Amino acid sequence: MASLRPLGRDRCLELLASVPLGRVVFTLRALPAIRPVNHLVDGDTIVIRSSLATSLASSATADGAVVVAYEADAIDLVRRTGWTVVVTGAARLVLDEERLARYERELEPWVDEPMNCVIGIDCDLVTGYELTPAG
Amino acid sequence: MASLRPLGRDRCLELLASVPLGRVVFTLRALPAIRPVNHLVDGDTIVIRSSLATSLASSATADGAVVVAYEADAIDLVRRTGWTVVVTGAARLVLDEERLARYERELEPWVDEPMNCVIGIDCDLVTGYELTPAG
Repeated sequence: MASLRPLGRDRCLELLASVPLGRVVFTLRALPAIRPVNHLVDGDTIVIRSSLATSLASSATADGAVVVAYEADAIDLVRRTGWTVVVTGAARLVLDEERLARYERELEPWVDEPMNCVIGIDCDLVTGYELTPAG
Repeated sequence: MASLRPLGRDRCLELLASVPLGRVVFTLRALPAIRPVNHLVDGDTIVIRSSLATSLASSATADGAVVVAYEADAIDLVRRTGWTVVVTGAARLVLDEERLARYERELEPWVDEPMNCVIGIDCDLVTGYELTPAG
């Protein structure tokens, strides 16, 4: 069995930035939905790419943000070590041309589907835990 | 870049059962919430343990089920291989004494917090994708 130790905000964002992949959690037709995506962390914003086909992109308009959760973890159940970070915040389309061009360059989609939207998630609420082997 | 190939229901549940850990997605105070947990798959039910402190357990009463999503994945972004499975279904407390005793025996909590509730998630909607290197 392992213990959970709470992590500070900075450490959480550092861990999030250290992995390429996380999971975005949102509401789709009134049901909870989750999709694995790759991300980058730019200051206080998590940046992901999404296709318009997923309702996340169609909900997250530039002015009307939608609240999502974003989770990443690295957990080794055998060694009882690892961490998990959850960010909750407003998600909105990135429309600024300079940022858009930079994110499209730095964040290669991991599947060959049309990833026609870049979405920024504000790190409004950041929680994380480190797993340590229990005494 | 990789391609996503849809997987059948049986293969999805087989993959889910092959890993110890997933993420349960639910709504907490009107916000999307996600927690990593360990699970077992018993036929058409995903079984997890939870503490009453998480609102998932308090929402999932025996008669009043709450709809959740459950996700597991194993993705290697370097090799462009892996899979992701999402199950959506009703979650309810397991109260049957025989099943409860069996699940408590077979599903050891992975953190040393009071996991005083056993929750069964119906596999109502099962979707999954296999990642294959794009041609």
